[in-house]
Amino acid sequence: MKKAKIISHGENHSAINLGQFDSLMEHSYLHPKLHKEIEGKVFAGEILGTTGAEISFQTLPPYEDISFKHQHHNNEEIYIFLKGSGQFQVDNDLFDVSEGSVIRVSPSGKRTYRNTSDKPLIFICIQAKANSLDGYFIEDGFRVI
Amino acid sequence: MKKAKIISHGENHSAINLGQFDSLMEHSYLHPKLHKEIEGKVFAGEILGTTGAEISFQTLPPYEDISFKHQHHNNEEIYIFLKGSGQFQVDNDLFDVSEGSVIRVSPSGKRTYRNTSDKPLIFICIQAKANSLDGYFIEDGFRVI
Repeated sequence: MKKAKIISHGENHSAINLGQFDSLMEHSYLHPKLHKEIEGKVFAGEILGTTGAEISFQTLPPYEDISFKHQHHNNEEIYIFLKGSGQFQVDNDLFDVSEGSVIRVSPSGKRTYRNTSDKPLIFICIQAKANSLDGYFIEDGFRVI
Repeated sequence: MKKAKIISHGENHSAINLGQFDSLMEHSYLHPKLHKEIEGKVFAGEILGTTGAEISFQTLPPYEDISFKHQHHNNEEIYIFLKGSGQFQVDNDLFDVSEGSVIRVSPSGKRTYRNTSDKPLIFICIQAKANSLDGYFIEDGFRVI
């Protein structure tokens, strides 16, 4: 299976390349609980050494769904849909998603999703601790020479 | 200018659609310090009400660069490149980026980037507080009916 390619690494950064998102199915991930190789998923947090957010790249094959809903203990999730089309459900609200759909789900939201098309549904999922972000984002950055 | 379309909102979630990423330049953002309309950028955190991460969608026009480097006080950044090609620099390390490049930068990393092509460079930037993520990500989620 294809692996993330490390393109740079230094004291303050690390960088990988996953290739074209249409080829995401060529990647796989060994699920630590199910002890099963899951195709089309890359959890990049461990590879990159992130400390503020987990980020995963995921593919749901044509017409597949997640057969269960899930919640979180502490983490807010943000889903970003890149390609394909499907449906997303949080609690009792069901809505269509496609390229450019961005969804915030609180830890206690009961969420699931499905691919309603004949193309792969490709998306990014970010996890970050709810209520961890201090202050207004633009105040956190500052220019240097 | 185009605005993010709200597609769903509930107690535990909010969802928007930004449209095709190739049309990101149709969006704009009023910079709170510069009091200037910046084209090709959407800061989605405020629209979605995120509490764990800020997420922005950005476009750098052909051959443009950011004329300065920046650091952060508290937030780690993750950049995800969606389209186009360019160069990214952290401290003294310079490397190429294109679709599928994912970069973690620590708060103190001095970062900048440029578009080296004749197409728009389209990317996502996530900010989350460094060292805020507790425990291993997969332990945070649990199935419900």
